[in-house]
Amino acid sequence: MSDFTVLRADAMLTPGGVVTPAELEFDSGGSITYVGPPRADSSVTHDLAGHALMPGLVNGHTHSAMTLQRGVSDDDDFMTWLGKVQDVEQRLTHDDLVAGLELALLEMIETGTVAFADMYYWDEELIERVRASGMRVFAGLACSATDHVAYPTVSPITGAEVLDETERLAAKYREDPLVRVGFAPHAPYTCTPEFLREVRERAIASGIPIHTHVSESAAEVAQLTEQYGKTPGEHLDSLEFFDANVHAAHCVHLTENEIVTFARTGTSVSHNPVSNLKLGNGVAPLPEMIASGVRLAMGTDSVASNNSLDLFEELKHATILHRGARQDAGAVLAPSTLHIATQGGAEAIGFPLSGALEVGKFADVIAVDLGVTTFAPLQATALVSHLVFGATGRDVAHVFIGGRHVYADGKHLTLDAAAVRARATEVRARLTA
Amino acid sequence: MSDFTVLRADAMLTPGGVVTPAELEFDSGGSITYVGPPRADSSVTHDLAGHALMPGLVNGHTHSAMTLQRGVSDDDDFMTWLGKVQDVEQRLTHDDLVAGLELALLEMIETGTVAFADMYYWDEELIERVRASGMRVFAGLACSATDHVAYPTVSPITGAEVLDETERLAAKYREDPLVRVGFAPHAPYTCTPEFLREVRERAIASGIPIHTHVSESAAEVAQLTEQYGKTPGEHLDSLEFFDANVHAAHCVHLTENEIVTFARTGTSVSHNPVSNLKLGNGVAPLPEMIASGVRLAMGTDSVASNNSLDLFEELKHATILHRGARQDAGAVLAPSTLHIATQGGAEAIGFPLSGALEVGKFADVIAVDLGVTTFAPLQATALVSHLVFGATGRDVAHVFIGGRHVYADGKHLTLDAAAVRARATEVRARLTA
Repeated sequence: MSDFTVLRADAMLTPGGVVTPAELEFDSGGSITYVGPPRADSSVTHDLAGHALMPGLVNGHTHSAMTLQRGVSDDDDFMTWLGKVQDVEQRLTHDDLVAGLELALLEMIETGTVAFADMYYWDEELIERVRASGMRVFAGLACSATDHVAYPTVSPITGAEVLDETERLAAKYREDPLVRVGFAPHAPYTCTPEFLREVRERAIASGIPIHTHVSESAAEVAQLTEQYGKTPGEHLDSLEFFDANVHAAHCVHLTENEIVTFARTGTSVSHNPVSNLKLGNGVAPLPEMIASGVRLAMGTDSVASNNSLDLFEELKHATILHRGARQDAGAVLAPSTLHIATQGGAEAIGFPLSGALEVGKFADVIAVDLGVTTFAPLQATALVSHLVFGATGRDVAHVFIGGRHVYADGKHLTLDAAAVRARATEVRARLTA
Repeated sequence: MSDFTVLRADAMLTPGGVVTPAELEFDSGGSITYVGPPRADSSVTHDLAGHALMPGLVNGHTHSAMTLQRGVSDDDDFMTWLGKVQDVEQRLTHDDLVAGLELALLEMIETGTVAFADMYYWDEELIERVRASGMRVFAGLACSATDHVAYPTVSPITGAEVLDETERLAAKYREDPLVRVGFAPHAPYTCTPEFLREVRERAIASGIPIHTHVSESAAEVAQLTEQYGKTPGEHLDSLEFFDANVHAAHCVHLTENEIVTFARTGTSVSHNPVSNLKLGNGVAPLPEMIASGVRLAMGTDSVASNNSLDLFEELKHATILHRGARQDAGAVLAPSTLHIATQGGAEAIGFPLSGALEVGKFADVIAVDLGVTTFAPLQATALVSHLVFGATGRDVAHVFIGGRHVYADGKHLTLDAAAVRARATEVRARLTA
C-alpha cells in the first residue's frame, strides 16, 4: 500500500486561486505533498469527480455541548435567554456533556468543519472524545472567579482549580496536533479584575492562550462603563490583558480605539454574525476590523443562539450583512470571508497548519458536491461565489482531517451517528421534563 | 383506488399549532379534507414517519429565468451589477429563457416552494412550462415604456404590446388555479408617469394585478425625490396607482407615511432580505410593516442577487436580521416570518387557498426530513424553531401541490433534473463565452 493518498476532483480552492481540474496528495503523516492539476502518473486513491476540494472550515467560537439546548429559548432577549440556558446547565451531568459534545462533533464534521474553538467545561475525557472523532479543538476551560463552582452537577471544582487543571491539560497535550488547551475566563463583565490579572499572569508565564467573550452586548458595555469608566476592551487593556495570547469572541461593540488596540496586540476576534443578530446584540464592525488588520476567525457560537453549527450559513451572513447594514456592496467581499472562515480562523485559534490547501500544511480538506441545483449552471472558475453564496453544510460529501478520512459520502467514519443523535434526544427529554 | 390521499407524519404545522403525530387527507381535486391526529380507520397512502408536514413556501418576488446568471456578478454594487446582468439579457433567446425557467422550477420545488411571483419576459409557452412542473405562478410581464423593446432577442414586442398580451393571457388563465397573470411595470424610476397611469387604468378596468419594484435602493429614492419632489411611494400614490391591486417588491426605504399608505390601500410587499443585503441596498422596515398591518410576502429575488432560491435561508435571515440591526431580540419572531413565507405570501400573490394546512385549502404541502443533525435533539413541539432557525431547503423530502406529488424522496416527478441542469450549463457557457 502506498504511503501517499491522492484525491482527484473537478476543482480545488488554493491560496493561489481555483485549480480546475485538480489533484491533492498527502503523506501518511497527514501533510499535503502536492496540490495542482492532475498528474499523468498518479495513483488515484479517491476519485471525487463532481466535487470541489477546499480547506476544512474553522469554527472560531462555540460552546459545543450546548447542542442539548437547541431550541430551548429562541425568541427571547439576551438576558432572558441566558437565564433559561443557565437553568438547564445547572442540571447537566458529565454524561450529558459527552452526549452534547458528540452531537456537536457530528454536526460540525458533516457540515465541513475540521477545527473549533470552544469555551465550556472541559476535562481529559471530553478532549479524548474530540480526538477520537478526528477533529481539532482549542478547548477553553470556562471559569469566572477563584471560588466560583460553575458546573456543580458535572464536577464541583472552583475557578482556582480550573486554572490549575488548564495548566495540567495544556502541558499534557502540548505536542498533540489535534489539541490546544486554553484559559477561558468568561467575560470582563463576569470576572473580577483580580481574577483576570491572575489568568493573564499565568497565561504569559506558561504561554497558554486565552479564549474569552468581549463586548457581546450593549448592556455589557454600559455595565463596564459604569463600573470602571472604561469599555470592555479599554478595561482589559488597562489590566494589560492583551499582553497574553487572547482570542476574543463577538466584539460587536468595539470602538475605533479598541480595534487599534486589538490590531496592535495581535488579539484575535471570532466574528459570529448569526448569534449576534439572533440575540439582538448588534452588528460587529467587521469591515473596520478587516481594514485594521485584526486577526479574524468566524464562529457559530452555540446552537442555543444560532441554531446550527453550519459555518457555510455563517459565511453567507458575514458576507452580505455588512453590505446591507452600510448600504455598500463593497463593504465585505466573498474571498475575504472565505479566508476568515478557513486560514484566518486556523491561525487565530492556534492551528496555523490547517486552513489552506498547500504543500506542507495539514491535509484538512473537504469535498463539496457540485451537483446540487443551487450551483447550476456550474462554472468552476466561480467556485468562491458558489461556495460563499450558494453552499450549505448539507453539500459536504467528504471530510479529511490531517489526512484521516472522518466522513465519506454522507457517512461518519469516527462516530456512530444514529446512537449519538438518539442519546442526545434522550438527555434532552430528561433535561426539559 | 381511493379518491382520497392520506399522509401520516411525526408532526404537522397548522394555523392552530403543531399537531404531533399528524395526519393530512386531501381529495382527488387536491383540496384538504382532514388535518389532525392520526385516525384509527385511515388508509394511509404515504407513511412519512421521521418527517414534519408544513405548508409549501411561497416566493413573493423572483425573476426565475435569471438562474442563468448565477454568479455573474457577486461582489459588485447595485448599478454595476445591473449593467452586467442586463448585458447578458441582451443575448438571451427564447430557448435560453425556457432553460433558465426550468432550472428555477427545479430549485424551487426541491427546496419546498410551491408558488412564486415572477417579473420577467413571460408568454404562453413559458407559463405552460410552469403548469407542467405543477407549480403555481403569478407571472408578471415585465415592461417599462410604451415603445420600449425589452428583450429584442427573445421577442421584439413593445411595452404597449406587452400590456395587450398581459390582458390576453390574464383572460386565458383566469380560471386556472395554477396561474395568475399580471402587469409588471419595472419600477417608478424606470417607467414614466404616463406609462404607470396607463397600467393603472388597465389594471383597474380588468381586475388584473400589478407586480412592481418599489424603493429598492437609496439611489432610486434620491432620483425620484429630485425628479418629482416625492419618494417612490408618494409618487405612485400621487398617480393613484395603489387604487389598483399592487404587489411591491423590496420596499427597503419606505417611510412611515408610505407604510401607512401601503397598509391603507392593501398594497402587498415582498420582503427580500438576502438580495437587499447582498446588493448593499439596505435593511427594510419589516417590524414597522408588520406592526402597521401591511400585507407581506417573502422573496428571494433572482439568484443573480442571492444566489439561491431557497426560502428557508430567507426565513432565517428575515427573522434574525432586524433583531440585530435594532438590538432588539423581540423585533421579529419566528412564527411571524413563517406566516409571511407561507400564508401571508400566498394571500399577497393571489393564491389565498395555498399557504396553510386546513380543511378546504389546497393540498400545497411539503414534508421536511426531521432526521438531520441540525434538528437534534429533536423536540416536535419546537417545530417552528427547528424550521425557521435550523432547516434548509436541502431537508425537503416531498412536495405536493394541489395534491399532485411533484417531488418524492429527493426525486423530481415532473421535471428531468439532470437534463434541466445540463441544458442550463450549456446555455451559460454560450452566454459567458
